[in-house]
Amino acid sequence: MPKPIIGVMGPGKNVSPFILDRAYELGKRIAQVGWILLTGGRDSGVMRAASEGAKTAGGLTIGILPGMNPYEASPFVDIPICTGLGHGRNNVNVLSSQVVIACGSGTGTTSEIALALKNNRPVILLGMDKLSQDFFQQLSSNQVYMTQSAEETIEIVKQILTG
Amino acid sequence: MPKPIIGVMGPGKNVSPFILDRAYELGKRIAQVGWILLTGGRDSGVMRAASEGAKTAGGLTIGILPGMNPYEASPFVDIPICTGLGHGRNNVNVLSSQVVIACGSGTGTTSEIALALKNNRPVILLGMDKLSQDFFQQLSSNQVYMTQSAEETIEIVKQILTG
Amino acid sequence: MPKPIIGVMGPGKNVSPFILDRAYELGKRIAQVGWILLTGGRDSGVMRAASEGAKTAGGLTIGILPGMNPYEASPFVDIPICTGLGHGRNNVNVLSSQVVIACGSGTGTTSEIALALKNNRPVILLGMDKLSQDFFQQLSSNQVYMTQSAEETIEIVKQILTG
Amino acid sequence: MPKPIIGVMGPGKNVSPFILDRAYELGKRIAQVGWILLTGGRDSGVMRAASEGAKTAGGLTIGILPGMNPYEASPFVDIPICTGLGHGRNNVNVLSSQVVIACGSGTGTTSEIALALKNNRPVILLGMDKLSQDFFQQLSSNQVYMTQSAEETIEIVKQILTG
Repeated sequence: MPKPIIGVMGPGKNVSPFILDRAYELGKRIAQVGWILLTGGRDSGVMRAASEGAKTAGGLTIGILPGMNPYEASPFVDIPICTGLGHGRNNVNVLSSQVVIACGSGTGTTSEIALALKNNRPVILLGMDKLSQDFFQQLSSNQVYMTQSAEETIEIVKQILTG
Repeated sequence: MPKPIIGVMGPGKNVSPFILDRAYELGKRIAQVGWILLTGGRDSGVMRAASEGAKTAGGLTIGILPGMNPYEASPFVDIPICTGLGHGRNNVNVLSSQVVIACGSGTGTTSEIALALKNNRPVILLGMDKLSQDFFQQLSSNQVYMTQSAEETIEIVKQILTG
Repeated sequence: MPKPIIGVMGPGKNVSPFILDRAYELGKRIAQVGWILLTGGRDSGVMRAASEGAKTAGGLTIGILPGMNPYEASPFVDIPICTGLGHGRNNVNVLSSQVVIACGSGTGTTSEIALALKNNRPVILLGMDKLSQDFFQQLSSNQVYMTQSAEETIEIVKQILTG
Repeated sequence: MPKPIIGVMGPGKNVSPFILDRAYELGKRIAQVGWILLTGGRDSGVMRAASEGAKTAGGLTIGILPGMNPYEASPFVDIPICTGLGHGRNNVNVLSSQVVIACGSGTGTTSEIALALKNNRPVILLGMDKLSQDFFQQLSSNQVYMTQSAEETIEIVKQILTG
């Protein structure tokens, strides 16, 4: 197997500075460890921030786009994959990630967390509110990890990959 | 536009008798009103119960299957659509439904609720626990309706369709 | 198994009157035999003509749409399935058809013929030019039938379904 | 835009040594020019040969898999994308490629050529027999290039990318 592909999922809009900062930091650390970053590819919100963080650290970035046009990708995406699937691409996002990190919340991100659990991909929820934590813990207690920082998240990814 | 297509989403396994009963009743009433029932098509759980209810009342039933084999459909499905998309078919389920009713919970159902909200389809949650209700209300307060019975659910679908 | 679903694939534009006439006739005869018609659903070309023919004879019509909007369907489609897959929906078209009839030619139709053969669905080419016939015969000689009329096509479908 | 992604499409089985050799050579030259190679990702036929060629030259290789398991990818694939779409992934293959090279023939490859043309991606047919050449030329004369060697193919890709 090649380098691990780590997915960072999060909303494209209505993202707080706290979450954007975490996404950037996640991307940077993923690149520093030598993993490949995968996001939803668009040039906004968590997708852009994580990709920018990874490029800052010289990492490789994949963007799984909903549309058919590679130019819709963030300039921080090295490899734009054009699915033409619309929101159906969310399933490709999680299937292609060895570990799925959700950073921030929204309907798209919720669908990705749920699809990741459905497909038996391990899921880490970074900085999620108490209600959402309780909901996902009830939905599937075995595979869901809760974290508050990028640093802590990276440690759990390491444990999962070596487990 | 032809007859409305109403989607009933719910898990295939670990379904309580309460939820199975509601799903059957939903299918029956959807058929009685003259609407078309759409489910995930498989021969288990909520998909089967809703389809059986609809056929009891002489309705028309569509099943959006994850696989490539029409014989995987419930015998209560009139029109098996073979997507070959795996869980990616969940997006087709909700896009093809004018109203999405979630009956029971699970990771697949959660992904369908989230994708329905992402795609601006109205969503009704039937018999959902308090925690899940609070979670989805927080996620998207405008479009989510909460109900406890099939009867009440059908009334809300009528309001949505005539709204 | 419920009623057979028969797919009629063909281009949406640049369609000759000869092909449109055959598509309409195919739809009508499919309905008369009691089968369900499946097309790509849009309101143009072969999709529209076949659906109109089927409705004239009181049949049931399914349209597998590329987009997310059921209102893009032909008014002769009873059941619009919104895939949101773009041209990727061509695979759903052929997977959901017990027999695939290609009526006319074009890039989309060629992809559907090829995907049908790849997925082991029987394929009938109606009114296809000699070059295309030779090409598909070379590609997969076992499963491809060549016809010139709707009547002849329906006879072959009957043989396939009872075979 | 990042480095160009060049798709090499071809069958997984029943591939002649001539075609395998061309696929390997294509992969090698794509890597030498500094482009990224994209294939269908599986460990057989043209997909494997092209990926192996690219890795020999130190290139980067993407594999768009039909299934949900990254371990189905060729060991010569750096980035396995798991689509879970079955043959529906063929549309993702061509959408994600700036230029599509078909090397060898088969039903899957034919669907990819047709989908590439449908999606307005330029297509090069390498080493294709006269009948197939005539067929695709008739289908869409503007965008199809015919070549006999990897070297010639690379030259045409260069022209397309700078055009």
